[in-house]
Amino acid sequence: MDLGLDNVRFPLLDHGYVQLVESWGSDEQIIRSARMSTAKGFLGWGPKCRACGDAFDGPERDCPDHIVGRPYVDCGRGGHMFDAPGDEKLLKFLWDNQHSTPFEFAGMTIEVKAPIMVLREWMRHRTQSFSEMSARYTPLPNENYIPSIERLMVNSKTNKQAGTIKGAEELTEEWATRFRRILEDQYVNAEDLYQHALQGGVPKELARLIVPVGRYSVMRASTDLRNWCGFIKLRSAPNAQWEIRQYSNVVASLIKEAFPRTYEVAKSSLGLE
Amino acid sequence: MDLGLDNVRFPLLDHGYVQLVESWGSDEQIIRSARMSTAKGFLGWGPKCRACGDAFDGPERDCPDHIVGRPYVDCGRGGHMFDAPGDEKLLKFLWDNQHSTPFEFAGMTIEVKAPIMVLREWMRHRTQSFSEMSARYTPLPNENYIPSIERLMVNSKTNKQAGTIKGAEELTEEWATRFRRILEDQYVNAEDLYQHALQGGVPKELARLIVPVGRYSVMRASTDLRNWCGFIKLRSAPNAQWEIRQYSNVVASLIKEAFPRTYEVAKSSLGLE
Amino acid sequence: MDLGLDNVRFPLLDHGYVQLVESWGSDEQIIRSARMSTAKGFLGWGPKCRACGDAFDGPERDCPDHIVGRPYVDCGRGGHMFDAPGDEKLLKFLWDNQHSTPFEFAGMTIEVKAPIMVLREWMRHRTQSFSEMSARYTPLPNENYIPSIERLMVNSKTNKQAGTIKGAEELTEEWATRFRRILEDQYVNAEDLYQHALQGGVPKELARLIVPVGRYSVMRASTDLRNWCGFIKLRSAPNAQWEIRQYSNVVASLIKEAFPRTYEVAKSSLGLE
Amino acid sequence: MDLGLDNVRFPLLDHGYVQLVESWGSDEQIIRSARMSTAKGFLGWGPKCRACGDAFDGPERDCPDHIVGRPYVDCGRGGHMFDAPGDEKLLKFLWDNQHSTPFEFAGMTIEVKAPIMVLREWMRHRTQSFSEMSARYTPLPNENYIPSIERLMVNSKTNKQAGTIKGAEELTEEWATRFRRILEDQYVNAEDLYQHALQGGVPKELARLIVPVGRYSVMRASTDLRNWCGFIKLRSAPNAQWEIRQYSNVVASLIKEAFPRTYEVAKSSLGLE
Repeated sequence: MDLGLDNVRFPLLDHGYVQLVESWGSDEQIIRSARMSTAKGFLGWGPKCRACGDAFDGPERDCPDHIVGRPYVDCGRGGHMFDAPGDEKLLKFLWDNQHSTPFEFAGMTIEVKAPIMVLREWMRHRTQSFSEMSARYTPLPNENYIPSIERLMVNSKTNKQAGTIKGAEELTEEWATRFRRILEDQYVNAEDLYQHALQGGVPKELARLIVPVGRYSVMRASTDLRNWCGFIKLRSAPNAQWEIRQYSNVVASLIKEAFPRTYEVAKSSLGLE
Repeated sequence: MDLGLDNVRFPLLDHGYVQLVESWGSDEQIIRSARMSTAKGFLGWGPKCRACGDAFDGPERDCPDHIVGRPYVDCGRGGHMFDAPGDEKLLKFLWDNQHSTPFEFAGMTIEVKAPIMVLREWMRHRTQSFSEMSARYTPLPNENYIPSIERLMVNSKTNKQAGTIKGAEELTEEWATRFRRILEDQYVNAEDLYQHALQGGVPKELARLIVPVGRYSVMRASTDLRNWCGFIKLRSAPNAQWEIRQYSNVVASLIKEAFPRTYEVAKSSLGLE
Repeated sequence: MDLGLDNVRFPLLDHGYVQLVESWGSDEQIIRSARMSTAKGFLGWGPKCRACGDAFDGPERDCPDHIVGRPYVDCGRGGHMFDAPGDEKLLKFLWDNQHSTPFEFAGMTIEVKAPIMVLREWMRHRTQSFSEMSARYTPLPNENYIPSIERLMVNSKTNKQAGTIKGAEELTEEWATRFRRILEDQYVNAEDLYQHALQGGVPKELARLIVPVGRYSVMRASTDLRNWCGFIKLRSAPNAQWEIRQYSNVVASLIKEAFPRTYEVAKSSLGLE
Repeated sequence: MDLGLDNVRFPLLDHGYVQLVESWGSDEQIIRSARMSTAKGFLGWGPKCRACGDAFDGPERDCPDHIVGRPYVDCGRGGHMFDAPGDEKLLKFLWDNQHSTPFEFAGMTIEVKAPIMVLREWMRHRTQSFSEMSARYTPLPNENYIPSIERLMVNSKTNKQAGTIKGAEELTEEWATRFRRILEDQYVNAEDLYQHALQGGVPKELARLIVPVGRYSVMRASTDLRNWCGFIKLRSAPNAQWEIRQYSNVVASLIKEAFPRTYEVAKSSLGLE
């Protein structure tokens, strides 16, 4: 499923985005891969009608013929006895018991535009493949991250990691506004000097020394589903920096779309609702 | 591109096979990933007509209007001047200079049936994901590898690794035939005892101690194109064991089909013709 | 700390062993690596006496001078006020919050002799480096695993994975004894045929087809502490096969000796007592 | 071999360094690991005297008793016939034939202080473990990289990657001096604003947006010898950026000291003299 460049870009922060390039595998392929161990293959999703063998995805009702309290299915062809639950049960078992190998048989490549600061955190995930814009080859475009007032004011008393230095003032809205202006001025200033240096013959790879870590860069990132889930677990967590958490949440939504059943069994342990 | 179970199985040895489950990415996506560094994207394959901009894939002729000896293209719309070669040139540059990251943005999952001995060699490739049939969960089917006379007689004088022990007789065709019979008897014998033990209540995970490494097992293996090429480089090499070389050669043919341009630039350094 | 070949071999099963080759890093280096993030370095183990600065490792008592219920230390030099807890607290925090990177700055190389069946399970741990004896280069020594009666009789009713096939008899002690004899005969038989084939000029790499997965092989395995803990978590677990569990438990004891404080904070989540 | 903090720091650029924290394994352990395949162990370095068995490391002479042109050794105890070359031969064979696994049984942890720009390149080596100072937890110290005039003037005509933008002036010494002043001013400016923001209550994780990629950070990096050699191959290469090349060359010198025989067999293929 190669979606090319027509694909939707999910906008993030003031200039960033996440875009699905391609996914491979599927919930079904995860089951098929897991079933290599017993050579049984994929058996189907959902309960099956015991009479006609069809899978069921309609409303469930109590089954009067059988065990009290057990729902049944009217398949419309005379069958109304469901069988054992389908392969969602195996999927859940695999996830809950950390049999993670089958989730390596599916994956996703995405494109990401984010501040260098965010990419620096992202690239600590060493099982991902990365291909990033390089300031050695091309001057970085002049796009820089300025956090919103709201974001700056996030009460971080519960999170030491997001904290201020000792002896700092308490951040006021006035000061937050001022910081945004300072940032903007500094970005403009840095860009002027960067362009000035480039024009003056300073090699790109050295002129970039001026560039602040708030500047945007672009990359592709690719890994398997197991490792995307590992990324989300760390980066959608409450103690992750707010910025990368926004990106991680979009990655989670892409997984939800491409691998809905895996998302379902994984979400609570990944801290997603 | 999920090809399901309908996919072709390439038969190997006496009972083995390799089957493509799925590939992802493409030669074009490899270029797109590489071009992240300069933000230029995919520019197209083949030379372009300088007049009309079309890519060219017809026969080449000398260009009478321009530099002698340089081929040109009659695009049929008045153009007959080709431009610089297309992105095959970048693909070749990436490969030749070991810029291997872009080749991680494509990949392949396959299913493999091979003797345990072969899987043992295969699983040394630790960048691949594996999911294998397990004799703890299910008794291994009774299929075992018996090399052909021809294979047994391969003159291994040039390859010490494929050699015989010191003081061994020189292998005769008669002895090769005899070895095949010995193997077959031993396989039958092992299966009898295996089944006997299983029936007698010996746990599957212990009954399997009897199983010889010539028995077939099945697995799925998945990794990116960079690492499949690394596999082929080692396993299609002349000093690789003949059996795994047959498997590796089929993997190479799957790459040739799914990623024809990468195959073209990689084949000579991978020792493929 | 290179312990060479004089090192202790922990015997396992009937012919196997685990032997420490070398460890590197230390509990202290793990702290130093973690403290890179705040540039603070290693602060010391244990509470310190606030008066004389010494670290404390004696019995704790309530501190009458200070907060009720808080233990104090009589350091013998007039000091009896402990300071903040030492770096064990950070070590525990790192482990409990899955900040696993610092545990990559220590590691261990071991040598292992185990049945091929066990090595097959072991080698699924792809972050480990392996170097194993090769039957392509040298005939495998004639040592084979025969489980004890006790081991064979392990009641596996609570563990489906360790189970028998459907319709199997219940294993009796008589049958277990018989299985041991069958195994032994089959091993002798296999060795005879293996040697016969080798003498007859069959290449080593093909003669080995006869060898059963109960035969012993030898390897070295090396990885960092984080990944050794991952190995133990899976392989010392109750649903791991009994044989590899014995090996994993010895690996755990080596970790206990080389990294006692890490062992202390990790043991309960690794399922070790 | 834990060298603690007393260890030598190799100064690099204007404020950077590389420092060995610890190495493990040895040339000898590499051989021992490789010899697992044949169960032969370490046989010794250098040729041996056939008469007395001693290893030889003195001057070689032609052996008059034996084959003409073959050097011999006068061991001083009557022996003067050398035996087969020692295990350097195997070490060279392993390296030349890319049998790289044995080189995973040795490794090195180092501490590195370098501009963020350099660490960004470094961290692309995903087999290394990293632990870096974090500007989320602690304000980054005010140290920034200003390239020397000499470095700025490096004629980069032969290296497009180190090049200038199209239409740039040719860099003069005057302009290089000016760029250094611009950089310095910009660094001072950035630090003022950074401190200002921190004091005003902006969380550390956001105040850092101002910090330029020329600022120094500190990290530990750890991996095995195989992967350190892979790092050096890419980063000591002529087309690597000059700055990281200086770091890579120091890493190479650490390898030379800890693993002198490996360095010897590897250096030419790594592009080292």
